[in-house]
Amino acid sequence: MKLVVVRHGESEFNESNLFSGWEDVELTENGIEEAKNAGQKLAQQQITFDYAFTSVLKRSIKSLNYILEEMNQEWLPVNKTWRLNERSYGALQRLNKAETADKLGKELVSRWRKSYDALPPMLELTDPRHPIHDRRYSNVDPRFLPGGESLKTTLDRVLPCWADEIAPLLLNGKNVLVVSHRNTLRALVKYLEQISDEEIVQFDVPTGVPVVYEFDQELNIVSKQELAGEYNV
Amino acid sequence: MKLVVVRHGESEFNESNLFSGWEDVELTENGIEEAKNAGQKLAQQQITFDYAFTSVLKRSIKSLNYILEEMNQEWLPVNKTWRLNERSYGALQRLNKAETADKLGKELVSRWRKSYDALPPMLELTDPRHPIHDRRYSNVDPRFLPGGESLKTTLDRVLPCWADEIAPLLLNGKNVLVVSHRNTLRALVKYLEQISDEEIVQFDVPTGVPVVYEFDQELNIVSKQELAGEYNV
Repeated sequence: MKLVVVRHGESEFNESNLFSGWEDVELTENGIEEAKNAGQKLAQQQITFDYAFTSVLKRSIKSLNYILEEMNQEWLPVNKTWRLNERSYGALQRLNKAETADKLGKELVSRWRKSYDALPPMLELTDPRHPIHDRRYSNVDPRFLPGGESLKTTLDRVLPCWADEIAPLLLNGKNVLVVSHRNTLRALVKYLEQISDEEIVQFDVPTGVPVVYEFDQELNIVSKQELAGEYNV
Repeated sequence: MKLVVVRHGESEFNESNLFSGWEDVELTENGIEEAKNAGQKLAQQQITFDYAFTSVLKRSIKSLNYILEEMNQEWLPVNKTWRLNERSYGALQRLNKAETADKLGKELVSRWRKSYDALPPMLELTDPRHPIHDRRYSNVDPRFLPGGESLKTTLDRVLPCWADEIAPLLLNGKNVLVVSHRNTLRALVKYLEQISDEEIVQFDVPTGVPVVYEFDQELNIVSKQELAGEYNV
């Protein structure tokens, strides 16, 4: 059974160097091409998927749609879940990364961005950017809606989706495609590959490169293949 | 609670006058525009949906994706189900409608196309066009996979989706969007509006025109609005 993870293509906020997090920003033209390329690579591998998962943010949903189209597997059931949203960058969302570093200091901003457990400045409940004001989260217990997350709390939020949704499918011999976000995938991969809190700081996920994991019956990783290059874990 | 039904935009088989049925054909450029227009009309009405349903055929799935995009509601949960597939045209699928009429007689072909209970020539189980050979139906009891359908047997196949999936949502006050196919929607609308077997022969559903139904607590239709024109039932 195979799990393939893909990070969405470039978004408008990636391009303009803004913190995005749970902001629902568009793909750029370049991002659309990246998603299509990822789909073509998967089509070449002739992987037949059984289920797909993505976030409730359009940059991931659309990337998944382009991938499904290239693979001629539009009919796959898709689970769109807030648990696969990008890490919430809290009150940093919509701010320019370089300007914020100039204003508040490079070291602090670097810590917010890179360290495993640093929380960003949190969104107040009254802030219109807080997810509590967005009807797409109206089915979620409000106490689970973050005002800001570290990579660590992102992983806490992602893991129930892994344990309750994705892992049971893999254990039943299904192939699963996950299209999600940089830090969501960093968190998930940290768990899957048992990367330490220190090592994860240096670990990144490139946009639009599908990573194919094969598992054994106990969900140990048997092989890992990036679709530009290949190596065994 | 509102139910909005939309027929997918023009497909390549519509354009070339072939019987499509369960064949998984692409939208034309014109069909893409029709789907986007339908989405814009719904966006103007500011209808906030809770769930969307479509078939497992790409002309409907892609039409739905364009509509969701125009409405900025990509995050909606989507249920893609074989029960909302087009009527199966059996062994007529991929044949040219005019050529078939020339060959077999206009009257017979017209009966296959228009009458409520006429079955088309059936696909053999060994025919590669039979859905039993398509892995997207591997979760369906093979005895439920049709080799060909009348409008009547199409309705029999659609109704469990209405009764078990869509109606409970409406009864819970949710707004539901259904993007499906000509004969699937003719069948569903026949049931909803209690159109007789004779009258349904004349009833058609235009491509890309959203039809908005409002229901009361007992699922009686309170109003029906086509998004180009308006009238009460």
